[in-house]
Amino acid sequence: MPRAVAGPEIERLIQLLGRLPGLGPRSARRATLHLIKKRETLMAPLGLALQDVLGKIVECQVCGNVDVRDPCTVCTDHHREPGVIVVVAEVADLWALERANAINAKYHVLGGVLSPLDGVGPDDLNLTKLVTRVGAGGVEEVILALGATVDAQTTAHYVTDLLRETGVKVTRLAHGVPVGGELDHLDEGTLSAAIRARTVL
Amino acid sequence: MPRAVAGPEIERLIQLLGRLPGLGPRSARRATLHLIKKRETLMAPLGLALQDVLGKIVECQVCGNVDVRDPCTVCTDHHREPGVIVVVAEVADLWALERANAINAKYHVLGGVLSPLDGVGPDDLNLTKLVTRVGAGGVEEVILALGATVDAQTTAHYVTDLLRETGVKVTRLAHGVPVGGELDHLDEGTLSAAIRARTVL
Repeated sequence: MPRAVAGPEIERLIQLLGRLPGLGPRSARRATLHLIKKRETLMAPLGLALQDVLGKIVECQVCGNVDVRDPCTVCTDHHREPGVIVVVAEVADLWALERANAINAKYHVLGGVLSPLDGVGPDDLNLTKLVTRVGAGGVEEVILALGATVDAQTTAHYVTDLLRETGVKVTRLAHGVPVGGELDHLDEGTLSAAIRARTVL
Repeated sequence: MPRAVAGPEIERLIQLLGRLPGLGPRSARRATLHLIKKRETLMAPLGLALQDVLGKIVECQVCGNVDVRDPCTVCTDHHREPGVIVVVAEVADLWALERANAINAKYHVLGGVLSPLDGVGPDDLNLTKLVTRVGAGGVEEVILALGATVDAQTTAHYVTDLLRETGVKVTRLAHGVPVGGELDHLDEGTLSAAIRARTVL
């Protein structure tokens, strides 16, 4: 905006909202105006909710999930199958699997994947606690839900090696055609994997 | 999400963020995860910025704009032409005109338009202060930037009548083809208005 139409406090709010994924500078302005308009019913509660979460947020010492309690909501949920641990790179992946209602299991969040180029080594990932959890017994299967990038695949191999001596069954997600996806938009690697893993009808 | 993957504080944050324009339930989750990840550099400053704006926000007693000071940033800007007042329905319209760098003038925010159906009458709009401002002298032109809906046009007529005895020149925005717009996407009213207001090349 060429000239200021509001004080610096408001400009700063626009700038911070514009750093959220999905909000550009223009929608950040719209969001700010909306907040100003709904200042009692939205701006005030949102400010409090942010302070509330900020003050309580902790990393779960069992699984590496981020929550307002430790152990986290997932780890303390007794309706989940305790014998299956789904290993994910990020909390976002855990949320995505839960949104899909894909499996009723426990999770383990690595906090990233191995990436020599970015300087992420085994010590930077939440691996020691995973070995401890599996070693403590009661775990029948570890599902590696780590994506299909080179770094993720490297990480999957590394975790598999790490868990080998515990004797636990280690599996990975299937590769294939995304449900609803069109063949001619898919890369060669996915198509080859889908052919190799074809199933009988 | 079928089961809770995080405590109620986090779910509440997602829900509140989802009420911002431009953010649906899914992008609110993404935004929440981003905030949790950047809790020192984004979540904390955003919480403070919201509290800061919330604590300072006031309606400008001169023009009806909303800002952290009264009179507002626009009214106290001495680089603006003081003899021209642009009348807008909402603060968002003021921001839009400023973003377009359309005019270097002062503003007057009505806080809505007349709408018998929604029970919005003249007493609900910031009209008395407009008459006072114009009556105080020094104003050469009042530009009604009120949109082209029936309610907005009714409001424009009402304001014109209201200002008639002050003798001030009252103008409205031109109707016509939006810049970059295609003719076959425009409604008949706009096309007729554009023909009537055609200009010589």
